[in-house]
Amino acid sequence: MIRESPPSRRYVILAEGRFEDRNAKTAHGLIAYGRTDAEVVAVIDSALTGRRVLDVMPNLRRDAPIVATLREALRYSPNSILVGLAPAGGRLPEAWIGILREAAEAGLEIVSGLHQRLAPMFPGAKVWDVREPLENIPLFSGEGFDVQPKVALTVGTNAAIGKMRTTLEIGHAARKRGIAVEFVPTGQTGILIAGWGICIDAVVSDFVAGASEQLVLEAAKRTPELILVEGQGSLGHPAYSGVTTALLHGSCPDCLILCTDAHLEKVFTRVPVPETKEIADLYERVAALVKPAQVVAVSVNTDGLDEDRARAFVEGVAETTGLPVVDPVRDSADPILDAVLRAPKTVEVGA
Amino acid sequence: MIRESPPSRRYVILAEGRFEDRNAKTAHGLIAYGRTDAEVVAVIDSALTGRRVLDVMPNLRRDAPIVATLREALRYSPNSILVGLAPAGGRLPEAWIGILREAAEAGLEIVSGLHQRLAPMFPGAKVWDVREPLENIPLFSGEGFDVQPKVALTVGTNAAIGKMRTTLEIGHAARKRGIAVEFVPTGQTGILIAGWGICIDAVVSDFVAGASEQLVLEAAKRTPELILVEGQGSLGHPAYSGVTTALLHGSCPDCLILCTDAHLEKVFTRVPVPETKEIADLYERVAALVKPAQVVAVSVNTDGLDEDRARAFVEGVAETTGLPVVDPVRDSADPILDAVLRAPKTVEVGA
Repeated sequence: MIRESPPSRRYVILAEGRFEDRNAKTAHGLIAYGRTDAEVVAVIDSALTGRRVLDVMPNLRRDAPIVATLREALRYSPNSILVGLAPAGGRLPEAWIGILREAAEAGLEIVSGLHQRLAPMFPGAKVWDVREPLENIPLFSGEGFDVQPKVALTVGTNAAIGKMRTTLEIGHAARKRGIAVEFVPTGQTGILIAGWGICIDAVVSDFVAGASEQLVLEAAKRTPELILVEGQGSLGHPAYSGVTTALLHGSCPDCLILCTDAHLEKVFTRVPVPETKEIADLYERVAALVKPAQVVAVSVNTDGLDEDRARAFVEGVAETTGLPVVDPVRDSADPILDAVLRAPKTVEVGA
Repeated sequence: MIRESPPSRRYVILAEGRFEDRNAKTAHGLIAYGRTDAEVVAVIDSALTGRRVLDVMPNLRRDAPIVATLREALRYSPNSILVGLAPAGGRLPEAWIGILREAAEAGLEIVSGLHQRLAPMFPGAKVWDVREPLENIPLFSGEGFDVQPKVALTVGTNAAIGKMRTTLEIGHAARKRGIAVEFVPTGQTGILIAGWGICIDAVVSDFVAGASEQLVLEAAKRTPELILVEGQGSLGHPAYSGVTTALLHGSCPDCLILCTDAHLEKVFTRVPVPETKEIADLYERVAALVKPAQVVAVSVNTDGLDEDRARAFVEGVAETTGLPVVDPVRDSADPILDAVLRAPKTVEVGA
C-alpha cells in the first residue's frame, strides 16, 4: 500500500527468545520511532521477563514492559500483535504460529513484515501483511526527474546498519526547524512507523525503480520542501545490491547520506565491508549514470562504543572522507541536515 | 521454471504490425537461435504479407513465411503460438486477444513472455507464461562462489543491444571447439531458446540474486567447463539497473563481456549512453565489492552499418578500451571466446 492512514494501534511485539537479536530490528524501530498512534504496550520474550525495554536496550528511548506470555501481554490492552522479527528470507519461526493463533482468538490483529504472507495461514483473523505490494506498480517513467522538492536518500556500507534511523533522525531535526519534510518508507519497519509506503524488496524486480519513483511522487504531492527516502541494502551486499541500485536510480535523489557503523562486520560470509571512501565514490558514479547525486554527509552508528571510542571513530571517518560525520542518535542529526540543505537540486545527465 | 525440457514446438509467431519493431526481439531471437525442436514455421504480420523473414531481416539467418492471418498460418501446422512482442512493462496489445482466442480454439498452445500472465485470460487453453517464476526461490547463499566451471556474464552499455545474442554466439564458438559449455537463460527469449531458465526480472526483488545463483548452480550440475550467463538491462538504465546489479553479484562471474552498439541511442528519455570505458570500469568496481571480475572483451552490435563503418566503429572501441572488440554476428565470436578462456577464475573479495 502506498498511502493508507491505519487505525490507532496498541502493539504487543512478539519477539520470543529473540528481542535482542539484530533481526528484531522491526521491533526495535517501531519502539524507538513509532508515532503516538502506533504505541508499543508490551514485548513478549520469556528470556527477559521482568525487565523493561530500556533496561535491555537503552538506545530505544521509549519504554515498555517485557513479559513471558501472550496472556500477560493482554493485561496491557493491545489491539495488534506484531511479528517482531525480519529474518533473512523472511519466514515465520514455527514456534510462533500457536502464539499468533491464540492472539487472533483474543481479537488481536496480526501484523507482519515477513516475505511469507500470513493472511492465508490465519483464516478468519485480521491480518496486515505489510510487505504485500500494490497491484499495478508501473515501470520507471522518468517523471521523478521533475519533482520540485529536494530529494535525499540514505545509502549504506552494509545492510542493517541504521539507514532508517538516520533518515528518521534527519526528519525530526528538519521538523524542529519548521521545514516541511516527508519521510518516504521503503521497508516494513518504515511503513509501520509512518503508516504508508511500499516494501520495495517485495516488488517484482522489473518494477522496483518504478515503485521507488511512485513513492517520491506521492511524497511530493504533500508539497514538502524536503523528501527523505529510506535506503535499503547496500551496493556491496550480494543479496540486496539489486534493490539498492533500483532505489538509487528510481527515487531520483539530489544528494546521498552514507550510513556506516563502527563494527565493521562482514557484509556477507566472506565479503568484507568496503572502504568508506571507495563505496561513497561508487554510489556517486552509479547514480551519475542517470542523475548526479553527491554524498554530502556520513552517518555513523556507534552503538555499543563508549564516548571516547565513538568520538575517535567519527573523527577517523571525517578525516578519510572530508565530509561532515556524526552519529545522529548519540549526538544530533543537525550537521547532516545542514549538509543536505546546502546540496543543490540536480538534473539528469542528459538535461 | 528452472529446468524443463519442453515438448518439440512448431511456432507461429504473432507479431501483427510489429514484426520489424525493436520490441519484437523475442520473436527475432527465437527465429535466429531457436533449436530444431523450437522451430518457427510462420510469422503473422499483415503489413509484410508475401515477404519472408530473411527478406525483411537478413540477420536472422533462419527463414519462414510471413502471412496476414492465423488462418493462413495454420497451413504450416504449428502447435504453438508465440506472442512475439515484449513491450516495456510487458502487456498484451488489445487487438491480439481475439487472434489468440482463435488460435486456442484451433488447438494451439499459447506461449508468452509478457509480465502480464495470460493463463487466466484464456481459461481452458494450454498457456505457457514463460515469465512465471519458480516458487520458493531462496535468498543468495554464497554457494555460487564455489562453482568449479569458469563463469562469464554479458553486461551492457544499454538494455536491448545484443547481450543474449552475444552470449549465444560465444556458446556456439565454444561448442565448435569441443568445449563443454552451458548457456544460462535469464530472460524470456533465452528460456524459449534453451528450454529452461528463470526470467529474473519477474522475480521478487529480494530474491533476484538468489535466482541468478541458482541458475549458475543448476548449470554447474551438468559439469561444463564454461558457463555463459545471459545478461539483463544495464547498470546505467534507471528502470533495469536493479536487475542488472543483482545478476552481476548473484551469478558470481569470473569475467565480464561488455556489449554495446553502434547507434548510441539514449538509454532512457533524457539519459545518454555512458562512455564505454567509464561503464566498463564501473561494472568491474561494483562486481569487485563482492568478487572481482574483469571486462575481458567488448561485443559490438553493428547491425545496419555498411562494412566500412562497422569496421571503423569496432576499431574505435578497441582503441578506447584496449580490449578485444568484435561484432560476433557479423564476424566471429572467437576473439571474445579466446579472451574468456584466458581470464582467470576469481575468488570473492574476502577469501
